[in-house]
Amino acid sequence: MPSTYPSFRHSVPWLILLLEAVFIVLSYFLDSIVDAHFPYPDLQDVSHMLIFGFGFFLTFLKRYSFSSTGFSLLIVILGVQCSILMEHVSVLLTEISLSGIPGAAMSTVAVVISIGAVLGKMNPMQSIVMVVVEIVVFYVSRWINIYLLQASSHVSMMHVHLFGAYFGLAVSSRFSEPSPRSEKNASTPRSDLLSMLGTLFLWVFWPSFNSVLAVEKDRAIFNTCLALAVSAVAAFAFSGLITKDGKFRMTHIRRAALAGGVTIGFAADSIKHPWIAMILGLLASAISVLGSFCLQSCLPTLRTHDASGVHFTFGLPAVFGALAEVVFFVMDIQTKLPSIGNEVLLSIGALCFTISVALITGLITVSSFGCWILNG
Amino acid sequence: MPSTYPSFRHSVPWLILLLEAVFIVLSYFLDSIVDAHFPYPDLQDVSHMLIFGFGFFLTFLKRYSFSSTGFSLLIVILGVQCSILMEHVSVLLTEISLSGIPGAAMSTVAVVISIGAVLGKMNPMQSIVMVVVEIVVFYVSRWINIYLLQASSHVSMMHVHLFGAYFGLAVSSRFSEPSPRSEKNASTPRSDLLSMLGTLFLWVFWPSFNSVLAVEKDRAIFNTCLALAVSAVAAFAFSGLITKDGKFRMTHIRRAALAGGVTIGFAADSIKHPWIAMILGLLASAISVLGSFCLQSCLPTLRTHDASGVHFTFGLPAVFGALAEVVFFVMDIQTKLPSIGNEVLLSIGALCFTISVALITGLITVSSFGCWILNG
Amino acid sequence: MPSTYPSFRHSVPWLILLLEAVFIVLSYFLDSIVDAHFPYPDLQDVSHMLIFGFGFFLTFLKRYSFSSTGFSLLIVILGVQCSILMEHVSVLLTEISLSGIPGAAMSTVAVVISIGAVLGKMNPMQSIVMVVVEIVVFYVSRWINIYLLQASSHVSMMHVHLFGAYFGLAVSSRFSEPSPRSEKNASTPRSDLLSMLGTLFLWVFWPSFNSVLAVEKDRAIFNTCLALAVSAVAAFAFSGLITKDGKFRMTHIRRAALAGGVTIGFAADSIKHPWIAMILGLLASAISVLGSFCLQSCLPTLRTHDASGVHFTFGLPAVFGALAEVVFFVMDIQTKLPSIGNEVLLSIGALCFTISVALITGLITVSSFGCWILNG
Repeated sequence: MPSTYPSFRHSVPWLILLLEAVFIVLSYFLDSIVDAHFPYPDLQDVSHMLIFGFGFFLTFLKRYSFSSTGFSLLIVILGVQCSILMEHVSVLLTEISLSGIPGAAMSTVAVVISIGAVLGKMNPMQSIVMVVVEIVVFYVSRWINIYLLQASSHVSMMHVHLFGAYFGLAVSSRFSEPSPRSEKNASTPRSDLLSMLGTLFLWVFWPSFNSVLAVEKDRAIFNTCLALAVSAVAAFAFSGLITKDGKFRMTHIRRAALAGGVTIGFAADSIKHPWIAMILGLLASAISVLGSFCLQSCLPTLRTHDASGVHFTFGLPAVFGALAEVVFFVMDIQTKLPSIGNEVLLSIGALCFTISVALITGLITVSSFGCWILNG
Repeated sequence: MPSTYPSFRHSVPWLILLLEAVFIVLSYFLDSIVDAHFPYPDLQDVSHMLIFGFGFFLTFLKRYSFSSTGFSLLIVILGVQCSILMEHVSVLLTEISLSGIPGAAMSTVAVVISIGAVLGKMNPMQSIVMVVVEIVVFYVSRWINIYLLQASSHVSMMHVHLFGAYFGLAVSSRFSEPSPRSEKNASTPRSDLLSMLGTLFLWVFWPSFNSVLAVEKDRAIFNTCLALAVSAVAAFAFSGLITKDGKFRMTHIRRAALAGGVTIGFAADSIKHPWIAMILGLLASAISVLGSFCLQSCLPTLRTHDASGVHFTFGLPAVFGALAEVVFFVMDIQTKLPSIGNEVLLSIGALCFTISVALITGLITVSSFGCWILNG
Repeated sequence: MPSTYPSFRHSVPWLILLLEAVFIVLSYFLDSIVDAHFPYPDLQDVSHMLIFGFGFFLTFLKRYSFSSTGFSLLIVILGVQCSILMEHVSVLLTEISLSGIPGAAMSTVAVVISIGAVLGKMNPMQSIVMVVVEIVVFYVSRWINIYLLQASSHVSMMHVHLFGAYFGLAVSSRFSEPSPRSEKNASTPRSDLLSMLGTLFLWVFWPSFNSVLAVEKDRAIFNTCLALAVSAVAAFAFSGLITKDGKFRMTHIRRAALAGGVTIGFAADSIKHPWIAMILGLLASAISVLGSFCLQSCLPTLRTHDASGVHFTFGLPAVFGALAEVVFFVMDIQTKLPSIGNEVLLSIGALCFTISVALITGLITVSSFGCWILNG
């Protein structure tokens, strides 16, 4: 269908302008709700993560290094604008803000993770539609998590990693896998270096990310620092162990260095002993590196194509972190027996709910693209 | 004149040392005036913009990618030192500080914008002389704006974009245009990527820049964020519309993404509705992309060579922003009829005054270079 | 010995895991001592310096550009973890914290400077052992400086530059110098650009570094800014003067731009006149550029191989700064005659003590590597 593609390309600018018009008109009607006061330093750290961190994290494919820096800016801004709008809609309907403007920026992480899973497979049109759909569904999912499953604002926000990873994998599963030797999958030293730079940006600002909505900010920052440090160091060790020549692979380090931050996110402000945070970081790193090693060597038939390895960077560590948070919660309140069962069920329910919603809506989204799957 | 050039080259170090000696001696005599207290976070954000943002923004030409990173550091520091000196002179003469040390750093933006317009045409000697002349003239122009034309400190500082762009264009107009095919005008994927990185740095720190001297900081930050977001997204749309193949051009995005921040600068702390900020961002982006498209296709004879497109990134959006601020001012105080005319005249007078001073002194500066124009 | 090297390579992951296990176990026993409260903005600035600044500062050799970004992350984290442990041990033994967690991050600068001196000569195993040894010795040296030689916490921390440079040089002296034409010493435009980027990061965050432990933070920041500015500008001048074609050499600028920050560090919070800070910056730049020029042309037999020129960036400027601090101290308290001699002796004693310890332990460390010196 080479004749269809250019027509899609020419409609992308109009779609973007239409979206902007919708945002402006809605912000006119939702005007008085907006609160111009917000914690600027928090917002700045999150925006550095989104623009520099994820912008460069996604440049590891040779063919996309240039465009993805620019294009991820477009995706991030559209995501943040959608999130702010959903925030306003939430205030309008329930009179309670879910997480304010820094929270709106944090929600955009779901979109960027999903884009990482399908990198190089979707055209700009599909990407933009995916952004809008994913943000709307994520806000609905968060709303249900908070009001029906009684998750805290912080924990429900940490589900952003789960949601982004599994939504992206569901979308990715419907696209055919590019041949391993094609140029689309090739990386160069320069693109690898840029990607490492992106990882370093994410790594440095991750403590800020985990503490924005946390109740005890200082504790959340301290625990995240510890977990990230152990996780990054262990990434080198595990990478050296599973490669035959004993050399460190940048792919492993890129993934596992962040796994600690993702895992600790859920319980960052409630862990009371540094050694627990350090062990969580170690285990997260092991899950990320060894998990990718096992899944790719033992179960090749199961795997869908996962361009940036978001399953091992964000998916599995987030599942582990959510389960760890439940365990800590049980250990913390083990004296008050009667209520435990209920709380634990709700926590695990929230986890399963988020993953299910992500997988189902991801599959629906990509199916509805229908004839748009031009690369498939 | 190949024999003249090396002699100039050898006198550059002595010129630099002479300037430093002057700064040190003057700071000895102006000693007690200096106030060591200043808002460090503000200064840090502005210095990140100057060093990383403009440093990389100016690396888009292949031949200059390496030297411009280093050389722009020299230009920026000399500019800031000159500004601090002019700040002291102003305190000495009028006993009132114009804008303090963060303001001195912000004034240096004029110099970096001008350098962007003449990139690749001037030798280091000429660049350094231009820095000193431009800063001195800009401070005199700001002083007249504040004390005679009653502009606020914030608005007079925002004239930095106007001043930098038109001073640079005036200087550039006297140099012959390099042939489009020469290596001097070539860019590479790497230099384009660095330049995009610079734009991202500027984009991320622009809200800080617009809020340093603003009265209502939070409002200025919020409005600037909104305008920048719409402007960057619209840049993609307009870029897709005016290119024949519907692809995004990095040149357009680099220019238009910042246009929103420049435009909103003037009225950032007085705009009360988010949708107004968003519409300003949209219009700024349109002016930047469509303006460059129209001027380059319809009026090729009029254009001077503008290496980084500073006219479309900083010049036109700043004129638009200054006019928009006058309109908002009129709408805001329309009840108090008698005084409007006077105030509006002063505001428009300040705008015209800054542009005139920039153009005239720019032309005088470059004319006085005389026999120095070795590339022309 | 090609058969020995792979076996070392395979034991690196186990060494890393062992270190992490030790850190976790010790943090379990030292649990209640840890204070989770710390100044996060300070820590963030120092970690940006360590990760981005030194990470890229060390990428100037073509062969190491890729691996050093990743590997320096490993070195930095191991160094910080060791430092936090030593901090805890110090609290356990003396019940007084030396400098808290930001101080632990700052101590890691010693390790990164030393790595710069031996870049490309040591295998990962030796580097990791060097990190652990160097941090332990540096903490013991600081402890003696503070409790026996009565140095302030701030000044004893500034000895980190001295310690790092001379420890690194001592280690480097035992390795054979690579031939100047070998690929190991080659740099490319890209690696030079990255290295310049690292220098810029260090330069921008240096005022934060000098102010973390300072008593008068604002004054320390202001003086450091002044010294850094003059030092960077003078670097261009001196570089132009000593090269035959009058061009600026990036190597000179990279070294001398930071020299001002290193020199001013010792007295940053006690210098009362801006012109003194500016003159110190100028002299530091001269010492760095002219020192390297003289030593390399007059005394070729004396020099050991110094891969990143740490002697001229950190070593000599730090010696000069420490001596300048003694002079200021004498001039400041010249009225109270009796006690001067004692205080001056202690200050100079601390300086000599740190350098001696660094040189001696550096030589012992590298000698104990014994058969590990596989490249030599």
